[in-house]
Amino acid sequence: MPANKQIHLASRPEGEAQLSNFKLVTGETPPLADGQVLVRHHYMSLDPYMRGRMNESKSYAQPQPLDQVFQGGTVGEVVESKNEKYAVGDKVVGFGGWQEYSVVDATQPGALRKVDTTHVPLSHYLGAVGMPGVTAWYGLVKIIAPKEGDTVVITAASGAVGSAFGALAKARGCRVVGIAGGPDKCKYVTDELGFDACIDYRQHPDAKSMSAALKEACPKGIDGYFENVGGYIFDAVLSRMNAFGRVALCGMIAGYDGQPLPLANPSLILISRLKIEGFIVSEHMEVWPEALKELGTLVATGKLKPRESIAQGLEAAPEAFLGLLKGKNFGKQLVKLV
Amino acid sequence: MPANKQIHLASRPEGEAQLSNFKLVTGETPPLADGQVLVRHHYMSLDPYMRGRMNESKSYAQPQPLDQVFQGGTVGEVVESKNEKYAVGDKVVGFGGWQEYSVVDATQPGALRKVDTTHVPLSHYLGAVGMPGVTAWYGLVKIIAPKEGDTVVITAASGAVGSAFGALAKARGCRVVGIAGGPDKCKYVTDELGFDACIDYRQHPDAKSMSAALKEACPKGIDGYFENVGGYIFDAVLSRMNAFGRVALCGMIAGYDGQPLPLANPSLILISRLKIEGFIVSEHMEVWPEALKELGTLVATGKLKPRESIAQGLEAAPEAFLGLLKGKNFGKQLVKLV
Repeated sequence: MPANKQIHLASRPEGEAQLSNFKLVTGETPPLADGQVLVRHHYMSLDPYMRGRMNESKSYAQPQPLDQVFQGGTVGEVVESKNEKYAVGDKVVGFGGWQEYSVVDATQPGALRKVDTTHVPLSHYLGAVGMPGVTAWYGLVKIIAPKEGDTVVITAASGAVGSAFGALAKARGCRVVGIAGGPDKCKYVTDELGFDACIDYRQHPDAKSMSAALKEACPKGIDGYFENVGGYIFDAVLSRMNAFGRVALCGMIAGYDGQPLPLANPSLILISRLKIEGFIVSEHMEVWPEALKELGTLVATGKLKPRESIAQGLEAAPEAFLGLLKGKNFGKQLVKLV
Repeated sequence: MPANKQIHLASRPEGEAQLSNFKLVTGETPPLADGQVLVRHHYMSLDPYMRGRMNESKSYAQPQPLDQVFQGGTVGEVVESKNEKYAVGDKVVGFGGWQEYSVVDATQPGALRKVDTTHVPLSHYLGAVGMPGVTAWYGLVKIIAPKEGDTVVITAASGAVGSAFGALAKARGCRVVGIAGGPDKCKYVTDELGFDACIDYRQHPDAKSMSAALKEACPKGIDGYFENVGGYIFDAVLSRMNAFGRVALCGMIAGYDGQPLPLANPSLILISRLKIEGFIVSEHMEVWPEALKELGTLVATGKLKPRESIAQGLEAAPEAFLGLLKGKNFGKQLVKLV
């Protein structure tokens, strides 16, 4: 029964999330029951959707309960097993939360997944070959459904979803345009991720300026848009959409703190006959095998080179998470525990 | 060559449309060329979409040209024919515009359609068994795609689209809730059109009040929404949508005069994983035969009793049209010429 440090949600944010919303707790891992395994976490995933779950208000997921381990994806190694399908040393992906160890009932379908780290580093199963990658895949393939030659745009392009989206869209013959914050991220998006262009939103802080930048970067208009952010960028993109364009709506990070985030001109949805669809990738488990296969191949063959921001140690998680919400990360934000 | 009175668009509106934007012109119908027919219009259709075409700005249709016949749907009778498929006396639906006669090249596919008035009055081919009816059909069947027991909501419920929508949705076992302006229209929507409930928006002039009224009228939430209006009603409906709800976006009449019409909380699209789709029925001609068949049967069997507001004479068209934009009509707005 190793000691097990955890981070709990101590209080719900009023407005912006704060370090004081979290607290560090030390407990012990309970003895295993039949069917269970003990996983030592190597990496924890920090994701924007977690901010929404800190609120009590209606959201797509149940709120994160107070005074319990903060929930989230993890990768690690089986260190003890009472389940014949899992052996000590197996590398696994799960939803272990912000703690050093988790006890998992591995008889539950989907609770744990063994992964092969021969060609794909373990941490990437939280990013490009994990939930963020499948998110990009679903939005691109199932909602945007691009034809060769279509122009597609994504916000937060240097992040875990954005980088996977770029590789998937290039593989389908699209023109891919990213939106990211700052020249370093934009350079990475074009030079290393292979996007055709990247717009620095800091240089275009209102809808009119962003719309002009999009016109230049997307001379044939925009056929598909993957929305991670919301706000004025959404307005600007809608003004540049071609007839019958598709919008995959996956995040509205700009509105997580409760600020109003209106859409200025929804009549564009009618004028351009757009389809806008909100989705959560965990509700589409049927696509995961196909998506993970393509994403794993892209990483293993070097066509997708995801970047990671790695914070060290459990205690660093809250600050790294708050930084992520402000775009301070560069690529997939992880916490390394081992 | 009979004399032919016409109404032209004389100028584009600045803000609200005015009578002075129209002018009456008298001309003559030219002699027929081979393949053409001369149609005497019995009724002209007045439709909200026409307001959008009065503007020069980007819209889904080409703008109505200045100093030309105002375009629109018509039904009438062939009075002269140089096309062997059409005989004098045939009843036809076309797009003859605001004039007493039109010369139609009947060799063009879709330019003219012969109709049977045995069980369906001629005027209904401009409403329930015409473009508005098919509009309702497409939004309900192809976008909302309701299951039996679903709750669906439509604005402008007493109008041509709304009345057809109600009958089509009841035929599919839905709970149908209308939104209309004033007690007379609401009574007609429930008592004569068979809606399960109707909300008078004049009693609920803001999103909060409308949302409360919707909660009462839709105790199981809203699965499908047909949007004709935009504005605060759209906001209120979105707040009551169930997960995986569908929105057919067909009109934003509240914004035709150029006033800003923002959507207050687009993050609801994500939170409730909604699908919103804008459409124009003329781009989906492939569904017309199936839709018209169902709509014709509903009318012929008395299950759909569409109401009409009929203005008398060509000169009355502009004023009747401006009234339509303000909701002064009650049911399908027509102009009777014969």
